[in-house]
Amino acid sequence: MTTTEEATLSVDSTRLWQTLSDLGSIGAFHDADTGLNGVCRLALTDADIAGRKLVVGWMRAAGLSVRIDAVGNVYARRSGLDDTLAPVMVGSHIDSVATAGRFDGCLGVLGGLEIVRTLNDHGLTTRRPIEVAIFSEEEGARFGTDMLGSATAAGRIPLTEARGRTDRDGVTFGEELDRYCLVGQQSVPMPTAPHAYLECHIEQGPILETHRSEIGVVSGVQAITWLEVEIAGRAAHAGATPDALRHDAELAAALIRVHLDEMVKSSEYGAMLATVGRHETLPNLINIVPSHVLLTIDLRNHDGVDMSRAEDDLTEFFRDVERRVGVTITSRTTAKTPPVHFPEAMQDLIEKCAANLGLRHEHITSGAGHDAGEIAALCPAGMIFVPGLYDGISHNPREYSTPQACANGINVLMQAVLELSAHE
Amino acid sequence: MTTTEEATLSVDSTRLWQTLSDLGSIGAFHDADTGLNGVCRLALTDADIAGRKLVVGWMRAAGLSVRIDAVGNVYARRSGLDDTLAPVMVGSHIDSVATAGRFDGCLGVLGGLEIVRTLNDHGLTTRRPIEVAIFSEEEGARFGTDMLGSATAAGRIPLTEARGRTDRDGVTFGEELDRYCLVGQQSVPMPTAPHAYLECHIEQGPILETHRSEIGVVSGVQAITWLEVEIAGRAAHAGATPDALRHDAELAAALIRVHLDEMVKSSEYGAMLATVGRHETLPNLINIVPSHVLLTIDLRNHDGVDMSRAEDDLTEFFRDVERRVGVTITSRTTAKTPPVHFPEAMQDLIEKCAANLGLRHEHITSGAGHDAGEIAALCPAGMIFVPGLYDGISHNPREYSTPQACANGINVLMQAVLELSAHE
Repeated sequence: MTTTEEATLSVDSTRLWQTLSDLGSIGAFHDADTGLNGVCRLALTDADIAGRKLVVGWMRAAGLSVRIDAVGNVYARRSGLDDTLAPVMVGSHIDSVATAGRFDGCLGVLGGLEIVRTLNDHGLTTRRPIEVAIFSEEEGARFGTDMLGSATAAGRIPLTEARGRTDRDGVTFGEELDRYCLVGQQSVPMPTAPHAYLECHIEQGPILETHRSEIGVVSGVQAITWLEVEIAGRAAHAGATPDALRHDAELAAALIRVHLDEMVKSSEYGAMLATVGRHETLPNLINIVPSHVLLTIDLRNHDGVDMSRAEDDLTEFFRDVERRVGVTITSRTTAKTPPVHFPEAMQDLIEKCAANLGLRHEHITSGAGHDAGEIAALCPAGMIFVPGLYDGISHNPREYSTPQACANGINVLMQAVLELSAHE
Repeated sequence: MTTTEEATLSVDSTRLWQTLSDLGSIGAFHDADTGLNGVCRLALTDADIAGRKLVVGWMRAAGLSVRIDAVGNVYARRSGLDDTLAPVMVGSHIDSVATAGRFDGCLGVLGGLEIVRTLNDHGLTTRRPIEVAIFSEEEGARFGTDMLGSATAAGRIPLTEARGRTDRDGVTFGEELDRYCLVGQQSVPMPTAPHAYLECHIEQGPILETHRSEIGVVSGVQAITWLEVEIAGRAAHAGATPDALRHDAELAAALIRVHLDEMVKSSEYGAMLATVGRHETLPNLINIVPSHVLLTIDLRNHDGVDMSRAEDDLTEFFRDVERRVGVTITSRTTAKTPPVHFPEAMQDLIEKCAANLGLRHEHITSGAGHDAGEIAALCPAGMIFVPGLYDGISHNPREYSTPQACANGINVLMQAVLELSAHE
């Protein structure tokens, strides 16, 4: 149980906002499309290193002892009354995509720092130690695998594989870690699991804003499957080729896209989402029946069994389209992660904290992958979402959550941390 | 009626083939994809001018008197017994697309030359004069409007508009005509219409080859409508955006493509063809719901009324998709030509000539535009198609018609010319 003082504790919303702004100025660029400043701190670039230095400086100034592991993940520790107990860990990432805003990941890290500062201000010491983590290359925007740091910490990705990942110039993750002296003593996977892990993050979607919810209690992370689909037909003259003699790759692609929509709307596949995000047509000329289409399919599902059934039925539909349109369809799975379900106890705790603070909340499944989904393999994990404006647009300079929305999320996070750190 | 000698006359297949080969060497390039030599003689480039010089040289050597009009169309005349009569004109073009073969257009021009040479060999003089025409910029591949020369000769495109057409470097058609001294005395539109116009051309489609037909009696040229369609939705995270909150431009594009297929197969729109040849998706990333799609629609129809109804119904379907998907669809007509129907008498004549020569023939509608479709505004016109191999592939170095197929077409052309030129 938290004390009365702890139960009424609030973070300093202005200070939290200031750290978000200060970190957001590192790697900032002017975006002509939006007229706004965006952020570019691709993992282990000079900008990312500058951002790490700024945040680690703040951590040290707040009295935290900073350790680093073999893939550059940072763990900043605040001692508890009993330092033999496993810590309660909060964290996220501060690397970004090339066209980012200032909230994605940063809120979780700087929120952890703000909790520490608030506890310091009030001279409060928790029973368990608290650790604030910064995980490396969460975005996957430079080395091609997202959650690279946390997945290695959790043991899903072997260290040698992580170090061998290359960017588009052929530079390896390992070389960059060495160059910036970011290889610490702490091994990966983590030798001792935390007691629990919590992460506060912007939603990156429109649900909370649409429902006027202030807090999302995240039930888990959706399963993701990525397919790269190549359709091979035959180029032909648009005027001189009768319909019956065509092998139209563009028509085949359209039939697949429409079928995916029917699958999503059928409810036979649970909470399925489907996106065809890339579509390239060859030869891409107005009066030539397309010979080839390359398209990508992004499938999401709350449930692994529903996902497998959708994948199987889609493969069967490809064969059907091959017969109907006279094309050849080749499909390759380029990514596949199972769903993550956060423990009910963690969801209940977050829900209780939000309710105690009088914040409107709802359960929500994360559409995107997060470090919490990886650390969930090590210890009970949970996530708190806060709403973003403009349909929750993210990975874009327009990404924006209000100071109040951010403070709400970190206040819920703080209450949950206090509760978790009070127990053995 | 033709004489007995004329009725048994045959062109020299080897000589015709040699001229096709010789002209095909002008502007030749090695195509790595096919391992074959292709042809690039974009209108009024050095290569096109070299091709014109070669062919005009052959025309003069065959005793023809060569005139040129204000847009560079060449008319090479063989006197008849009565030069006060309007000539029978045969023709086509020798300009090419950037990745052409050696048959498209050239067969019609060099076939005309071969007829003149054959008549010369046999000392035959027709009653009417015969003219062999080379029309400028039929392909539209450089100055953006196909049949530019013949459409100006026929009065559909005003001379000043034709001269003002620019290539991608901003050079005008008029400047190039002046530079190469290709502006002759003969005005456009033609002051005196020919008695009749005939054009032999490769089919550029698979129908004749599929049916094992040796000659296509062309009934007309399909109506063509080109649309450029822009679909504006909203970019969104593929994982974090529920289906009901999406505005997916890619889905809208697919619904349109599938609907076009249903229209084609419904038979409610006559002999309709539909092609989506270009498709560009933005931002074209695997995990982002596309915000924009640009696509082109190529509609063909034998009948103008069916075409109009298809266009209207398609526009209505756009509105339906806007409502269903929550996108905005903007459509622009970038080209529109009505159908051309060649006179029955011309079709009957060609059919009779093919039958007399024992050649398997069928009626066929041209899917592509041709100079004959323009000259049809001036005088009775007709077209003869010959089959191409490999599904009639064209605008590609693989374009190929056999020596026998070419000779068959020109023999039919010659018989029709003899018949037409015998009458007043």
